[in-house]
Amino acid sequence: MSINEKISVEISSLPELKKPKLICGLPGSGYVGKLAIDYVIDKLQAKQFGDIYSSSFPPQVSIQSDGTVDLVKNSLFYCNTNGQDLVLLTGDAQPVSAQGEYALAEEIIEICKKMNVNEIYTLAAYITGKFSKIPKVFGTGTSPKIVNEFSKFGISKMDKGNITGMNGVIIGIAKRSSISGICLLGETSGYVIDAKASKVILESLSKILNIEFDMSELDKRAKDTEEIIKALRTQAAAQGTQEQPVGVPSSSDEKSLGYIS
Amino acid sequence: MSINEKISVEISSLPELKKPKLICGLPGSGYVGKLAIDYVIDKLQAKQFGDIYSSSFPPQVSIQSDGTVDLVKNSLFYCNTNGQDLVLLTGDAQPVSAQGEYALAEEIIEICKKMNVNEIYTLAAYITGKFSKIPKVFGTGTSPKIVNEFSKFGISKMDKGNITGMNGVIIGIAKRSSISGICLLGETSGYVIDAKASKVILESLSKILNIEFDMSELDKRAKDTEEIIKALRTQAAAQGTQEQPVGVPSSSDEKSLGYIS
Amino acid sequence: MSINEKISVEISSLPELKKPKLICGLPGSGYVGKLAIDYVIDKLQAKQFGDIYSSSFPPQVSIQSDGTVDLVKNSLFYCNTNGQDLVLLTGDAQPVSAQGEYALAEEIIEICKKMNVNEIYTLAAYITGKFSKIPKVFGTGTSPKIVNEFSKFGISKMDKGNITGMNGVIIGIAKRSSISGICLLGETSGYVIDAKASKVILESLSKILNIEFDMSELDKRAKDTEEIIKALRTQAAAQGTQEQPVGVPSSSDEKSLGYIS
Amino acid sequence: MSINEKISVEISSLPELKKPKLICGLPGSGYVGKLAIDYVIDKLQAKQFGDIYSSSFPPQVSIQSDGTVDLVKNSLFYCNTNGQDLVLLTGDAQPVSAQGEYALAEEIIEICKKMNVNEIYTLAAYITGKFSKIPKVFGTGTSPKIVNEFSKFGISKMDKGNITGMNGVIIGIAKRSSISGICLLGETSGYVIDAKASKVILESLSKILNIEFDMSELDKRAKDTEEIIKALRTQAAAQGTQEQPVGVPSSSDEKSLGYIS
Repeated sequence: MSINEKISVEISSLPELKKPKLICGLPGSGYVGKLAIDYVIDKLQAKQFGDIYSSSFPPQVSIQSDGTVDLVKNSLFYCNTNGQDLVLLTGDAQPVSAQGEYALAEEIIEICKKMNVNEIYTLAAYITGKFSKIPKVFGTGTSPKIVNEFSKFGISKMDKGNITGMNGVIIGIAKRSSISGICLLGETSGYVIDAKASKVILESLSKILNIEFDMSELDKRAKDTEEIIKALRTQAAAQGTQEQPVGVPSSSDEKSLGYIS
Repeated sequence: MSINEKISVEISSLPELKKPKLICGLPGSGYVGKLAIDYVIDKLQAKQFGDIYSSSFPPQVSIQSDGTVDLVKNSLFYCNTNGQDLVLLTGDAQPVSAQGEYALAEEIIEICKKMNVNEIYTLAAYITGKFSKIPKVFGTGTSPKIVNEFSKFGISKMDKGNITGMNGVIIGIAKRSSISGICLLGETSGYVIDAKASKVILESLSKILNIEFDMSELDKRAKDTEEIIKALRTQAAAQGTQEQPVGVPSSSDEKSLGYIS
Repeated sequence: MSINEKISVEISSLPELKKPKLICGLPGSGYVGKLAIDYVIDKLQAKQFGDIYSSSFPPQVSIQSDGTVDLVKNSLFYCNTNGQDLVLLTGDAQPVSAQGEYALAEEIIEICKKMNVNEIYTLAAYITGKFSKIPKVFGTGTSPKIVNEFSKFGISKMDKGNITGMNGVIIGIAKRSSISGICLLGETSGYVIDAKASKVILESLSKILNIEFDMSELDKRAKDTEEIIKALRTQAAAQGTQEQPVGVPSSSDEKSLGYIS
Repeated sequence: MSINEKISVEISSLPELKKPKLICGLPGSGYVGKLAIDYVIDKLQAKQFGDIYSSSFPPQVSIQSDGTVDLVKNSLFYCNTNGQDLVLLTGDAQPVSAQGEYALAEEIIEICKKMNVNEIYTLAAYITGKFSKIPKVFGTGTSPKIVNEFSKFGISKMDKGNITGMNGVIIGIAKRSSISGICLLGETSGYVIDAKASKVILESLSKILNIEFDMSELDKRAKDTEEIIKALRTQAAAQGTQEQPVGVPSSSDEKSLGYIS
């Protein structure tokens, strides 16, 4: 038997949607995108219609809360809100190899073509290595038209750097297939699971898509994140060192690391 | 010549078995599963009927006790005990790549289908980073029905985490092929080859399958493991440090690492 | 879907050229080759006619100065100067795997055959671990005839070592396809982006090809490099250590590291 | 274009040989096997008849003494000595991936079948981490018959451990193709390029094959190796430490590391 890498898409029944937009939130730095997408899936009561398995995912099963296992996978949901059809992509993991990432992104674009998706959003983290009071949202996209509209929504334009992993490759391959791609990046330290960053991304996204959903629970989680950060700071201060403790930099204006994932 | 990865299964003659159950014990942390399966193969005088070679195994030969070599491989045995047909999978190694693990697991499931295997057990280690007097057995499976019966056999249910490697992927792919999969994990420190963990797993397995075999030799080996652990502790104490020596934590109730492999 | 690695070449329209020579400058140590080729593309107003994408490139998009993204890729340009047709290869990255490098090099040689390219130059760095006042240019090639002419152009012949990465593999595969291949290596410390090394390579190249272009801007950048090196030295001296500071060796005649990439 | 790994064998003209034996000496620890095979090729004036290229070799070219480059490759030579036809395999490198090693070994076995090779010798290093006055030769093979004859030639039988890399995989795949395989391992510290180990392997090999060749030059190189070791020891002693200096253990009877490659 040949053992090339394989991707298999299992779709129970393809929903009939009207020019849906795809929003992707896969696990990455600070779980910013994953946390955001899972919140949207929950709040908009999105329905699962498909799973994607790949031999380039980490070779493992996840144990569910009911004690049963499932292979690591990505999952597709859909919903309609304020007249807008949405497809939502979440998952347990990103592929472990370069070609695995390219292949999965191509598979996702194939699904988009079948469903007439003409716009894709990937939700990512903008790692700065410091804690900021009010995290910014950065953005990049596949055309100047997209990028030039960012200022209307309070999104900061980027003009250099790379977006690594699925958040980048999905919109890169979208562009080659003439599908619009936008990557929104929530500013985060990279040290904690950051609900604050997830929240600001979702606020930007809801403005762009002109949709709404209850943010109160995410607000609460964002406050929890703040408490964790405060505790880390206090602990760092208690160590009374003059040097900046590793992992807990001040929120002053030191140069951003600008690491993106 | 193309050099894709390849798996080749060499079966001398497929035994005719009645709804056999597959039990897998491959090398991993603490050699818990491997040690257990090799003990069962020995005690039940199981007969070898097949070998599996893969170009994703470590590229090496093992030197046998008679001085000859053999390529790294996995091997299949069968036996009948108390009216129950068993297929037993042991091996020198697990694949070195993600796609190699998925492909080997798929190959094993193909063999299961040919042999009408409807239940698969993988024997794994539950790494805690500490030495426990009486190791627990943890379990997870492919359906709530399986999981809910664990308590009958003194097996602790899990509700989070991942099972990495072949022990996870085999039951994950089993589930997608509608074959029942159960992973039993013996609690172990992860610091020594742990016959105690192998023993408690086999005790649980024999209760579930309603089979029996002489455990006296494994008892002896489990006692040897205990001696090794005692020696490690004494040595650690002799160093007279206040801090917990690395690699030899106390068996007190510090938080489990809960690492699984 | 199978997810083997893939390369796709997108050529808008193949220019009709007369026995063009290919010059390759991909990112590597000191950005020596990349900086040189981009300078040539700019000065000779070369026109882009193709892009090469590969699933063995790093899985990421690059953010352009206008805020839009593009998949990591290699790009092909052409121009005519002093009666000589040139094809120029630049790019964002080299492949991340061995087979990805071999496959991309083969693809490039295929393009060369279609365009009747009979000579290929790769521009590389010769890492010495020290800063030299006037960097040397080293050379190697696919035939003794090529190598024996180096002295005419002030290029130092090499007689051992390896050239790793695309700069090596491209001319290695060129040789197997009976295309002449020359690798020019600019001496560089390996510690800074080195415009001085790029400049000396381009000087050698213009002598070999009997072409000319305005070097004033590269001169300026080479001077900037010198300033950076001077600053590093001053800083090292201020630390007042007797030992040679790591990363800032003197330009004396200590043995070259001779690392090539 | 698909970019699977590829192996290509370029044979100028297959020599007609009578039941030749294949001897393999690829670069590895201490260069024991490579040094030995290159010495045999030189002394027996073996003729090159083929090259093997693989996309799983390190992606680089080697610079030859005449200043020209060549892709990393393995090469095949043949000769006749004392009525015995020999095929000799040497090379610049071993593959960088597991599947690359398996695929190359399979390709080599295919060549053996075409040439009616019925016996393969791989020359390897037995790493002990210490310097021994008179290095031993260890051996393993594909059948008990082979192994039982080792004592006749002063070769020590092994009964555990693994042989990693091409030296192991070649004889492992030979066994599956019913070709006899023998691995001879010269005892070496692993710290220096060890001509002494190469010499003792060749002495054993010439006894087994009943062939002869002038060993005087290798004797000289073995003495050079001894001088290097002596210098290392003196240097270690001069440092006057009580502890065993790293890298220069005494030749006393401390337990062998038994690392094989």
